[in-house]
Amino acid sequence: MGVNTNRVEDLSAFACHETPVKITVPTQTTATTTTAAAVEEEEGEGEEAMPPLELHRVCLPPKRSTFQKLKQRISDIFFPDDPFYNLKDQTGLKKFLLGLQFFFPVLQWGPSYGLHLLKSDVISGLTIASLAIPQGISYAKLANLPPIIGLYSSFVPPLIYSVLGSSRHLAVGPVSIASLVMGTMLAEAVSSADEPILHLKLALTATLFAGVLQASLGLLRLGFVIDFLSKATLIGFMAGAAIIVSLQQLKGLLGIVHFTNQMEIVPVLSSVLKHREECSWQTIMMGFSFLFFLLTTRRISARNPKLFWISAAAPLTSVVLSTIIVFAIKPTARQIQIIGDLPKGLNPPSLSMLYLSGPHLAIAIKTGIVTGILSLTEGIAVGRTFAALNNYQVDGNKEMMAIGLMNIAGSCSSCYVTTGSFSRSAVNYNAGAKTAVSNITMAAAVIVTLLFLMPLFYYTPNVILATIIITAVIGLIDYKAAFKLWKVDKLDFVACLCSFVGVLFISVPMGLAISVGISVFKILLHIARPNTMVLGNIPGTQIYQNISRYREALRVPSFLILAIESPIYFANTTYLQERILRWVREEEDRIKANNEGHIECVILDMTAVTAIDTSGLDLLFELRAMLEKRSLQLVLVNPAGNVMEKLHRSKVLESFGLQGVYLTVREAVSEASSSRKAQP
Amino acid sequence: MGVNTNRVEDLSAFACHETPVKITVPTQTTATTTTAAAVEEEEGEGEEAMPPLELHRVCLPPKRSTFQKLKQRISDIFFPDDPFYNLKDQTGLKKFLLGLQFFFPVLQWGPSYGLHLLKSDVISGLTIASLAIPQGISYAKLANLPPIIGLYSSFVPPLIYSVLGSSRHLAVGPVSIASLVMGTMLAEAVSSADEPILHLKLALTATLFAGVLQASLGLLRLGFVIDFLSKATLIGFMAGAAIIVSLQQLKGLLGIVHFTNQMEIVPVLSSVLKHREECSWQTIMMGFSFLFFLLTTRRISARNPKLFWISAAAPLTSVVLSTIIVFAIKPTARQIQIIGDLPKGLNPPSLSMLYLSGPHLAIAIKTGIVTGILSLTEGIAVGRTFAALNNYQVDGNKEMMAIGLMNIAGSCSSCYVTTGSFSRSAVNYNAGAKTAVSNITMAAAVIVTLLFLMPLFYYTPNVILATIIITAVIGLIDYKAAFKLWKVDKLDFVACLCSFVGVLFISVPMGLAISVGISVFKILLHIARPNTMVLGNIPGTQIYQNISRYREALRVPSFLILAIESPIYFANTTYLQERILRWVREEEDRIKANNEGHIECVILDMTAVTAIDTSGLDLLFELRAMLEKRSLQLVLVNPAGNVMEKLHRSKVLESFGLQGVYLTVREAVSEASSSRKAQP
Repeated sequence: MGVNTNRVEDLSAFACHETPVKITVPTQTTATTTTAAAVEEEEGEGEEAMPPLELHRVCLPPKRSTFQKLKQRISDIFFPDDPFYNLKDQTGLKKFLLGLQFFFPVLQWGPSYGLHLLKSDVISGLTIASLAIPQGISYAKLANLPPIIGLYSSFVPPLIYSVLGSSRHLAVGPVSIASLVMGTMLAEAVSSADEPILHLKLALTATLFAGVLQASLGLLRLGFVIDFLSKATLIGFMAGAAIIVSLQQLKGLLGIVHFTNQMEIVPVLSSVLKHREECSWQTIMMGFSFLFFLLTTRRISARNPKLFWISAAAPLTSVVLSTIIVFAIKPTARQIQIIGDLPKGLNPPSLSMLYLSGPHLAIAIKTGIVTGILSLTEGIAVGRTFAALNNYQVDGNKEMMAIGLMNIAGSCSSCYVTTGSFSRSAVNYNAGAKTAVSNITMAAAVIVTLLFLMPLFYYTPNVILATIIITAVIGLIDYKAAFKLWKVDKLDFVACLCSFVGVLFISVPMGLAISVGISVFKILLHIARPNTMVLGNIPGTQIYQNISRYREALRVPSFLILAIESPIYFANTTYLQERILRWVREEEDRIKANNEGHIECVILDMTAVTAIDTSGLDLLFELRAMLEKRSLQLVLVNPAGNVMEKLHRSKVLESFGLQGVYLTVREAVSEASSSRKAQP
Repeated sequence: MGVNTNRVEDLSAFACHETPVKITVPTQTTATTTTAAAVEEEEGEGEEAMPPLELHRVCLPPKRSTFQKLKQRISDIFFPDDPFYNLKDQTGLKKFLLGLQFFFPVLQWGPSYGLHLLKSDVISGLTIASLAIPQGISYAKLANLPPIIGLYSSFVPPLIYSVLGSSRHLAVGPVSIASLVMGTMLAEAVSSADEPILHLKLALTATLFAGVLQASLGLLRLGFVIDFLSKATLIGFMAGAAIIVSLQQLKGLLGIVHFTNQMEIVPVLSSVLKHREECSWQTIMMGFSFLFFLLTTRRISARNPKLFWISAAAPLTSVVLSTIIVFAIKPTARQIQIIGDLPKGLNPPSLSMLYLSGPHLAIAIKTGIVTGILSLTEGIAVGRTFAALNNYQVDGNKEMMAIGLMNIAGSCSSCYVTTGSFSRSAVNYNAGAKTAVSNITMAAAVIVTLLFLMPLFYYTPNVILATIIITAVIGLIDYKAAFKLWKVDKLDFVACLCSFVGVLFISVPMGLAISVGISVFKILLHIARPNTMVLGNIPGTQIYQNISRYREALRVPSFLILAIESPIYFANTTYLQERILRWVREEEDRIKANNEGHIECVILDMTAVTAIDTSGLDLLFELRAMLEKRSLQLVLVNPAGNVMEKLHRSKVLESFGLQGVYLTVREAVSEASSSRKAQP
């Protein structure tokens, strides 16, 4: 038997970095042992001559101190992109300048900015302003805030972003999801109708906390927190939120006066039914006509991206048209609700409005965290999308700091949560924006509006804001992506569905929490129940592959070659032990049924075992002992660097010895065969 | 350039199960292209003749319907051990008998039970009874329950386990950890001193819920829930709990009358200081002498396992001795607290005691869940340990059902939570137990005690129970294992430390929750920040390995070969994209510094990428496009079965085409080189 009970050997051979050991095995042993090659001869296909087998020892990784390892690990966790790489080998002044450029991207593109870029940026800036002004007013209403706050929020944050942000196409301002979530979450604590000032204070405070959270995530380089919102989750979440937002707009669209403050689908629909006699036919007619108009223009632009300006100009056109209509028919159409007086002037400072102590502070912080993470996710995703289209890179952590600082500044100047908006950024990109100057142009257009044009909005009907919101959010329902999820990955689809249903029927934060939970559970399930498979040799090659997938792969007689497709952690050691013993049992049954002799060696291909913990080490130790009791040798193949290191440090490697670890399956097979031949 | 922009090709070649395709490439191309071989010639070591390269297509896994895949996945998740495998190919009656045997393991060993086994089982049964009776009384006090409950719990559950359990060496009864946790958690709701009946009711109800939870986990085959308590967590938890328990015993050991109900270290120590004048010197003297005696016997047995009976007999000896002493000196030693009257008779039924509605139901359910999971973990770990020592297997799910049913039955017969005890099982094993009959013998000894010997415990001093508990739990502090964790895996050590500190200073359930959180976080961190590395060819072989680990591995000119060591999930796509682009950048810088030409092809070795989700698919698609813009070709090597399937279904495979996926790095290198040569 190949089982060697006396295993305390000199293991220094594994420390390849000190003493490289190469063991050359004479040719004759290998020629007789690779039994798969014998089978292959029958097929008579291009046989690969077996060369003299030179054994390569599995190496331990180079020795490093705990401190070095910690440093390496931390740099991998927090600085995967090595952000300061171009500071290396530079002089002091150059380093300082590059550092400034790093923190203020405007210094990178600013000096070389010229007229040729300005033209494009002004055009695109005006285009997004025509979209941002009506959307700003609408989204503020979505967050139950005064409409003017939406305009304020389209002025200060874009200016700050243009200095700090690294994306060239991001159009900054209020967005629908964050507005909706802020409205919903604050509505749980205070009613915006009864206590408008308190509500506004809480919204500004939430904005402050959102900004602080975002900036600190960026500063601490903890950007991976938002990575846990998977795409599948977001698809479901956005679709659910879009439906909730649209239902909320029934109030404006139907002209209902008394409406529920709740957000879930059931109370909203029952509120509509209850107050159906309040509907005004003028409002409904106007609403549906403009909804049709907006959706049609969106459709046209979607079919032909060159006509992007049609849908970009549509909201402002609708606002102007509807305002004129209401102004013209105002004596006969009292039932159409209008915006009314809006204060003129720039953003008033709002530092004194911040609500930093009191019974509602907790809800403000909670709202800040949820809206902060959501807006961060949207802003960074949008930034990355357009960066990828133009082959430049957006630094996630830097973006977080930019978005965070603009929200902190915003909370002190009467702005609520802002981020990069997907719809406006797309328009910006299509309109030919080249740099963040388009954001500055937009801000300038907003100033002009704030200073001089506010009285023009007096007769703007609320119904038009509702149609603008509905048109914007309906585009977030991405049923094609959901269908693709179903086709490609059922569990991702389930996460998507749960987040959709959770948002729709439970609540926005709960829906989000559920789907993050499912996404994490999916990762854990993959670890808890990893794939294991039997490998076979593809005749005439050194390739060992899954025999249920590669028909040409053949089992190697006397060997059971198993591959484990996951790290070995406490969460799966029990499962792996049961599963491996079951593979052994099944193989023994199969061999007995076919009268093929018996297994003598179990080879574990550890290539995909990328990590191991102490429970995993115990598993290998116990598995070896259990198999040895059954007269089976256990051999490990190609353990990864850190796995090898832990095997060594835990002394489990000693129990395997030099004959227990090989670099390739082929070497393990031929060596184990020859050592079996040598021992009678 | 090797970049092929027109990539919509016939991909049917991947479906190897329908149309096996083999492409044989003429020899001359490969001979010129494997550049690493050229380097190797200089070293002049055993060169491996390059055989004609026969390409092996990467196969899709065999086609299966969604239902088949679901079935396979469910069977892998819930039935990894294929529990009914010996029912296959059997007749109906045989199937029924085997099924009965499956559910009642007593039917497996019962029929062949004989006198030769009976002798060993009776001896070991009596030995563990001598341990179980004093421990039962002590542990019940630990849970703030009447001492008699501990004896009741050593009677009914062992009988039920002996019929249903699959372990031969598990000694069933109350255990310290579960007793402690039950005592702590219930103390938060009711005081056992003020409302003893309510407290007992809640304990029985918690036992019922613990049993229901355990049995349902077993029935639903959700045993992997307990796998999430890692060994590292448990080491820290047990050490913390042992210290808390020992501190609680200061009450008995010092003879203090008024003592705090709290469990944390600070209030307990301050309570001791506050009531130090209540200490009685007689109690202290007796306590420390017997503690010394018990610890000495334990030490002797630990050094020489054959003398196991010394430590096994010590607790009963101490009880007898101390009772006699107290009886002898009773007139002068009023200050030594004694157990006093214990009711005679068997377990009274307690169905009417169950507290199934009312304000404290929630705490009973919570206590049941925590103690249920903890006792399950202990019972199954102990069962597995002794099964491994004797080379038989314990079915985790079956054990859960056995333990669950015995707790359900226990809750109706005045027993509190029981499971397999580590200390008593070790004694049982050393005393030569062969089957579960030793549990029956123990139960019989407990009946005799309950029926006839209860008056003898009247003068047993409480201090002796405290010493028995301290001796038992002090063995749970496994500082050697903690040191090993530190040496082998720093993060495991942190989890261990957190659970220790959490239990000691916060609370038992919180400590547990924190350390489960850390263990899960560790898994997520491995996924969020996976290892990536550059591979090089070991000259003269087909082996490609990490160049920073294998000094002999050489970079292949014009190629950057990267290996990713983790599934590609939403949680790491951003990181991977940044990291891969950084590798490319660093390689380009290195090449520029060395004047080595330029990279033309990036090869991703996907062997360790065991799963992918929709975000991961998007990453590959985008990465390919981004690299193509830089005139770099992206090639995948050896995607796992399910990864290949998803690449295919999401159409990402089409963008790579036949020249984008290879089975081995070697084939990818030689093919990409030759296609580059072919195109000018």
